Amino acid sequence: MKRAGEDRNKHLLRIAARLFRTKGYAATSVRDIARALRLESSSLYHYIDSKEELLYRICVQSLDELMEKVEPIVFSPLPPLEKLQRFIETHVDAILEDRDRHAVMLFELRSLSPRRRKAIVQLRDRYEQLVLRMVEEGQQAGLLRQDLSARYLKLALLNLLNWSIFWYRPHGPLDSSAVGGLLGEVFLHGVLHTGVPHNALAAAR
Amino acid sequence: MKRAGEDRNKHLLRIAARLFRTKGYAATSVRDIARALRLESSSLYHYIDSKEELLYRICVQSLDELMEKVEPIVFSPLPPLEKLQRFIETHVDAILEDRDRHAVMLFELRSLSPRRRKAIVQLRDRYEQLVLRMVEEGQQAGLLRQDLSARYLKLALLNLLNWSIFWYRPHGPLDSSAVGGLLGEVFLHGVLHTGVPHNALAAAR
Repeated sequence: MKRAGEDRNKHLLRIAARLFRTKGYAATSVRDIARALRLESSSLYHYIDSKEELLYRICVQSLDELMEKVEPIVFSPLPPLEKLQRFIETHVDAILEDRDRHAVMLFELRSLSPRRRKAIVQLRDRYEQLVLRMVEEGQQAGLLRQDLSARYLKLALLNLLNWSIFWYRPHGPLDSSAVGGLLGEVFLHGVLHTGVPHNALAAAR
Repeated sequence: MKRAGEDRNKHLLRIAARLFRTKGYAATSVRDIARALRLESSSLYHYIDSKEELLYRICVQSLDELMEKVEPIVFSPLPPLEKLQRFIETHVDAILEDRDRHAVMLFELRSLSPRRRKAIVQLRDRYEQLVLRMVEEGQQAGLLRQDLSARYLKLALLNLLNWSIFWYRPHGPLDSSAVGGLLGEVFLHGVLHTGVPHNALAAAR
């Protein structure tokens, strides 16, 4: 790994995330990771304490990145629906741009030790709180339905967005922003043909 | 395992599914499964050829069950929207009733050998075709939006429904049928407050 410090670290996490996603964390050995990096296992331990540390760092990196991109939207002065739309685009774009990292965070939580799992669950909770906040703002402004609980709407939204990781194909018919657009449409407007034009969102702003 | 044939088999798959879901397939040993069944590993091999066979049988069981429950709805003479609603209720109810089995099917596909993975992917494809068919019927009848592709609507719907497996709590505030109801509402009507009453579905029938 003849790379500068920061760069080397990123490279290491990227390669590990790819292996963890394709083979699964438990089925990936430190030797597999070392081989993919063209290192001896003993040299890899120069950079990490354990395989679990790598998993932990991938999860932190995933949630830090999402938080960093979404926080400015949540605390911006944008109107509630515009916030929600920007969030949907940004979140989908981020997870589809680096599916290895985010899929590992979503998938491999159970492989962390209890202490580290707790830390990741706390980061996830903080992130979900941001999403909840946007849903609640929309409800309070009378723009989102109030007959469904904000907590479950947040969960439904994250279901809808996150799992596109598993069917998205980078060279498929829709790019990541089109996937975000489609899922945002379904979430906001539903799929029923109501006879009402589906640009009601623009009108509602 | 002092149980009759059929029963013993089900018990074995249930215990294995629970372990695979909580610890992950790769991290679960045949010895773990034998211990949970109060058997010696050598006796367990009397019932199965390999750990992978167990995983395969769990996946088949999951998809057979879903197919068996959903096929009669798809080929019934019900109107398109009613079919879709029945499907949503039935699917959510089935996956939340036996989360171990269905989560393993959704989660552990990559742990199967290529030959068996291919067989499961084919079963999944058949199931997804049933869902696609309902969406297309709804579009053809002018009841569902035609500006979004049926293929992606099917994927969005399955995203929305399937991943409730990971946050559903059996003794939480919503039971499985309430979760199905909520997710069906979001899918059909969206979350936007439109001023239109949200029982349009009943009216559309």
